[in-house]
Amino acid sequence: MKQTAIQDQYDEGYSHCYCCGSLNEEGLHLKSFCEGEEVVAIFKPEPYHIALPGFVYGGLIASLIDCHSIATAAAAEVKQRGGCELSRYVTGSLKVDYLHPTPLGVPLEVRGCAEEIGERKVVVTTTLSANGEVCAKGHVVAVKMPESMA
Amino acid sequence: MKQTAIQDQYDEGYSHCYCCGSLNEEGLHLKSFCEGEEVVAIFKPEPYHIALPGFVYGGLIASLIDCHSIATAAAAEVKQRGGCELSRYVTGSLKVDYLHPTPLGVPLEVRGCAEEIGERKVVVTTTLSANGEVCAKGHVVAVKMPESMA
Repeated sequence: MKQTAIQDQYDEGYSHCYCCGSLNEEGLHLKSFCEGEEVVAIFKPEPYHIALPGFVYGGLIASLIDCHSIATAAAAEVKQRGGCELSRYVTGSLKVDYLHPTPLGVPLEVRGCAEEIGERKVVVTTTLSANGEVCAKGHVVAVKMPESMA
Repeated sequence: MKQTAIQDQYDEGYSHCYCCGSLNEEGLHLKSFCEGEEVVAIFKPEPYHIALPGFVYGGLIASLIDCHSIATAAAAEVKQRGGCELSRYVTGSLKVDYLHPTPLGVPLEVRGCAEEIGERKVVVTTTLSANGEVCAKGHVVAVKMPESMA
């Protein structure tokens, strides 16, 4: 059975994010899917997502790790809670270690795992790989969306 | 006298970055300027740079902090060295703490300061503010571009 992307299960009012919102016409439309205990997305950058010639710019890598980790948090929390409606998380902090230059022109695999699931926050570690090599590692603290953003 | 943006002093071969490269036609064209010991940029996000309605998406904030910090590193190093040709830096690691939701529709002020200037790397702290309030804090380790990326 074909899975629905985690981002496509967000409430419509919260589906406008430039990186992952299904309703953002200008956006990147990142789609993340559960795969066992992990969450996986494949994203192919455009030629203009360049840093130095031949390499992906770091801000895109940070964006993909950010939104993918938020989706990973939402999926892990609903799985633990046992419901079916996703909570919407936002980013408390984001750390990215750039281990190797990320080549432009190939699909990137983003793979996230929830390390801690708390009442209010979820800690996620995420890798971003190209051609089977991990190019960047992310550590994200995802927090439940505060009322002030609703 | 009108200052030249730090990014406009990069070698042409390294001026294609999506976030800050002057030669990237699709890019964001972030421009950072020296102001005493600090480096400052003003950037107004587009309406589609949205996270949740009314707020800027975190990946853009990370991108601005990233490229602005790299410019801050290059400017601080050349000032200490006393030359006039900028070294090109890349990001070793990027940490962003999202302190408050960043409102969409107003100019953002990005302000960076080099904390440590070493032989090979520069540590930069950067704030991103909207309406005078610091919404995000960044900590970036900038490293001199490796030969493999030249």
